[in-house]
Amino acid sequence: MKLYDSQRAPNPRRVRVFLAEKGITVPTEQIDIIAKEHLEGPFARVNPFGLLPALELDDGVIITESIAICRYFEAVQPAPALFGKSPLEIARVEMWNRLVEHEFFRHVANAFRHSHPAMKELEKPQISELAQTSRSRAVAFLEKLDPELGNRQFLAGDAFSVADITALVAVDFMKVSRLECPPAFANVLRWHRDVSARPSAQA
Amino acid sequence: MKLYDSQRAPNPRRVRVFLAEKGITVPTEQIDIIAKEHLEGPFARVNPFGLLPALELDDGVIITESIAICRYFEAVQPAPALFGKSPLEIARVEMWNRLVEHEFFRHVANAFRHSHPAMKELEKPQISELAQTSRSRAVAFLEKLDPELGNRQFLAGDAFSVADITALVAVDFMKVSRLECPPAFANVLRWHRDVSARPSAQA
Repeated sequence: MKLYDSQRAPNPRRVRVFLAEKGITVPTEQIDIIAKEHLEGPFARVNPFGLLPALELDDGVIITESIAICRYFEAVQPAPALFGKSPLEIARVEMWNRLVEHEFFRHVANAFRHSHPAMKELEKPQISELAQTSRSRAVAFLEKLDPELGNRQFLAGDAFSVADITALVAVDFMKVSRLECPPAFANVLRWHRDVSARPSAQA
Repeated sequence: MKLYDSQRAPNPRRVRVFLAEKGITVPTEQIDIIAKEHLEGPFARVNPFGLLPALELDDGVIITESIAICRYFEAVQPAPALFGKSPLEIARVEMWNRLVEHEFFRHVANAFRHSHPAMKELEKPQISELAQTSRSRAVAFLEKLDPELGNRQFLAGDAFSVADITALVAVDFMKVSRLECPPAFANVLRWHRDVSARPSAQA
């Protein structure tokens, strides 16, 4: 088994944090996105979509998409449960993971992809109007999230879940996108301190 | 229990098709997106994110996000399994559902949202350059999907899954986005005929 990883990209970090929470170690191979290694050379045959991370199983089967890789490990080793256990927990974790992805992470990533000089070759065309809209939408999500985190410890309830991992990675990626969490969002900042203090956040 | 539905929008259709495959009936309430009922009036209190569909449980708890709603029903009534059963099936269904969402459905939706006159009030600003890029990316995905569907009956393997539902809804939504599947993609068209022939496709 091997995990194709990319140290600086946000999606591979989601899997690394997930594996750290599970206490699972997987050999990794680094793919340099800035050097276009994900689009050219041997990795292009591993994943024709050019997406990272990718998990290669012992029989050569490839699983891509961070959350699909996480679900594979959740099925193989259910404890600690990071996708919920009861029907309601399962639904809430999926709901919050997706809300963070669609209403926040996507915008943080677009702000980066459509404005940063390092992405000029990879995101064609860079649409500056999209970068701008994305910045305000990312902050608008945090404004809606803040009161929610006043009522509970973690995104999907009182248990840490994969939704917290997605949100942690996305909030930390704001810096690269030249965004920051406004100091008025005290509940978001409290939550961010809590999840950043977990050992898995170093992954 | 009640499902907030919107007859013409693609995401609520994903849940309707899923429930039809499961043989589950849930009372629905229609919300008119063009009349902005999802952003104003009583529904804005049900879901502050203004997103459809939304499921209201008997105790008033609200679950949003199509796939979170589907996962709730999968957990309550596992058969027929539409998210896979073994670790590998679970990972493959999640992988293909997400590939379709991120590399295809998102682009089909953006082509509509950023160019259609009916979305002028709801998508501000409409970015015509984004609509154009999205059109070519949507077709580029189908080009990569076509050989995959030459090797197996359904997206994630030989069993129908939620990934097929997402792809069916997205392909059918191409018409609204003024896109069509090129006739050269014979495997995609074969798959589309197969899934469209299932009774659930009428939902």
